[in-house]
Amino acid sequence: MQRPFNFSAGPAALPEEVLSQVAAEMLNWHGSGMSVMEMSHRGPEFTSICETAEQDLRDLLQVPANFRILFMQGGGLAENAIVPMNLSSGGAVDMVVTGSWSTKSADEAKRYADVAIAASGDSSKFTRIPDPSTWALRKNAAYVHVCSNETIDGVEFHALPDLKALGCDAPLVIDCSSHQLSRGIDWAKVGLAFGGAQKNIGPAGLTLVFVRDDLLGRALPVCPSAFNYKTVAAAQSMYNTPPTFSIYVAGLVFQWLKQFNYAGKTGVAAIEQRNIDKANLLYGALDQSNLFENRVAADCRSRMNIPFYLRGDYNTPELNAAFLTGAKARNLLQLKGHKSVGGMRASIYNAMPLEGVQALVAYLKDFEAQHG
Amino acid sequence: MQRPFNFSAGPAALPEEVLSQVAAEMLNWHGSGMSVMEMSHRGPEFTSICETAEQDLRDLLQVPANFRILFMQGGGLAENAIVPMNLSSGGAVDMVVTGSWSTKSADEAKRYADVAIAASGDSSKFTRIPDPSTWALRKNAAYVHVCSNETIDGVEFHALPDLKALGCDAPLVIDCSSHQLSRGIDWAKVGLAFGGAQKNIGPAGLTLVFVRDDLLGRALPVCPSAFNYKTVAAAQSMYNTPPTFSIYVAGLVFQWLKQFNYAGKTGVAAIEQRNIDKANLLYGALDQSNLFENRVAADCRSRMNIPFYLRGDYNTPELNAAFLTGAKARNLLQLKGHKSVGGMRASIYNAMPLEGVQALVAYLKDFEAQHG
Repeated sequence: MQRPFNFSAGPAALPEEVLSQVAAEMLNWHGSGMSVMEMSHRGPEFTSICETAEQDLRDLLQVPANFRILFMQGGGLAENAIVPMNLSSGGAVDMVVTGSWSTKSADEAKRYADVAIAASGDSSKFTRIPDPSTWALRKNAAYVHVCSNETIDGVEFHALPDLKALGCDAPLVIDCSSHQLSRGIDWAKVGLAFGGAQKNIGPAGLTLVFVRDDLLGRALPVCPSAFNYKTVAAAQSMYNTPPTFSIYVAGLVFQWLKQFNYAGKTGVAAIEQRNIDKANLLYGALDQSNLFENRVAADCRSRMNIPFYLRGDYNTPELNAAFLTGAKARNLLQLKGHKSVGGMRASIYNAMPLEGVQALVAYLKDFEAQHG
Repeated sequence: MQRPFNFSAGPAALPEEVLSQVAAEMLNWHGSGMSVMEMSHRGPEFTSICETAEQDLRDLLQVPANFRILFMQGGGLAENAIVPMNLSSGGAVDMVVTGSWSTKSADEAKRYADVAIAASGDSSKFTRIPDPSTWALRKNAAYVHVCSNETIDGVEFHALPDLKALGCDAPLVIDCSSHQLSRGIDWAKVGLAFGGAQKNIGPAGLTLVFVRDDLLGRALPVCPSAFNYKTVAAAQSMYNTPPTFSIYVAGLVFQWLKQFNYAGKTGVAAIEQRNIDKANLLYGALDQSNLFENRVAADCRSRMNIPFYLRGDYNTPELNAAFLTGAKARNLLQLKGHKSVGGMRASIYNAMPLEGVQALVAYLKDFEAQHG
């Protein structure tokens, strides 16, 4: 039986093969007599799980040797504090605001640093990312922060800014929670990347941090040991007990992705191509519709999170509710938009098959034929 | 087939019934078409899971209405910073040091507060908890911290100190990571209790915090929003995305415990009685042995974590290794002592059946007959 298509913005759909394997191994992982949940994080079984997961992730994203991969906790909102505690030295931090998430990041960083907004998409109602050539970057910035994909607003950086080319020597920090592993990362432009796992990777409660070696060791004295990147890196993510089961599930997702094939490609290149095709299919349908619309500028549209609205007079509470009720009846789940913006949102992360987007597009057309 | 008996200090054994249910519900929770891992934390399905878990926990431990239950992340080591950031106001904090964990707590609190060691079991090599009547408590202490069960040293408070009776008005903070839910808590003596879930409750990556209402709202400005108890409480543990799957598993453990029967009792009273019987059985066998010993004073012995050592000349690397190899061959897993103290350790948390301790005792006797 076909599982329902789950468009949740996160926690989000996982590959069915991964869930099946997790269920099958629940009481006895690889003949150990233990569930992964029951293993000491320092024992040989979990050590092998964790090391394999980290190496697979490194391979998938071609993470350079001078970057450390950290498995942490607290999600993106915790990192909003943890990053400035580790990198700001209490000095200047330049933030680019492109939506709800980077707004929150800027607010939280003010606890620890001299924050300036280098650019904001506010005037476009966050439908457009300000061109990097317009950013007001300070010479003394400890780092520059961007949210490379805004989950609520549905805008995505399709190329990371080249700070050096802009005359800025500060490292770039990217919050890539909601599109990490959906595409490659141009590491030459990045100093630190972080993201919660609960979009493309695994269960909520695991945070991935990729940090360049030279940025370790700058933490403020108020930084808790458990969130000090240098401490966590030195302990290979075992300073405190890591979220072991979440790392295990993430590791299975990494293995699934390494073997993923699409359009003659493999791994991240394959999933990126499928993500492009899925996004094009859905945006194409929205742009052709007289009933629905996406409001984001074409070159800033997220491949992962696609908010859409009923147009003009059609945008009534009743018709929004009718859309969502009808969607659920077709096994198209969790399409409700974020409460702060309303409307609908389709999050089409890595685990969403092309068939899920096709089913949604078919429903959009049927709904328009009935109500348009 | 009987599962192996798993003596891990944490992450630790979980009830087989819980693991079986988790496996059975992995791809489709209660007809929702989703794994719990795939649910929005704000949707009706997960909201019901989370609210039920919290209420069941409140019922099990008879948590008073003026305490908030928070589901957080980072484990006990993160709380070592989070507690003083929330409660110390940068002032005086009195710490009672009874082993490895409270030592770490005191070291970390020094980042945020004026820490004094009110008492230490150091002179007894942490085999004894200093009598509360000897504690040097300061009039201006913002709180007094104890670790109510030391996982590595195997000492446990069998009654919480009555600070008021000692002339101290400060709230008591207990780190109860490794024995929470193994027994009741005398809430009248407590201001805040915290603990990682990975001993008696569920997967690593979930932290439980029980905080008295009047202690909310005192956080230092450097406290990250995601770890500010008032912020987390106001958002009902949904300020950041909580570790949803871990909360779900914990909820199943709570349901298992509510239905647990033993010696004519139910729930926490039943599990406490079984924990007493298990501990008595194992300590009795160690005390009668000429080959093995436990070194903790009788009235301070932990019911959960029982370190034991080969006596005197028997305590060789070879004989320790032989013991552990033989244990594994009998399906008695993860009995190796903590690296900082060596020897062996049996962690016999709630999920360990009496039969597991009986099997360990039988092995102790057989090993002594062969090597003693």
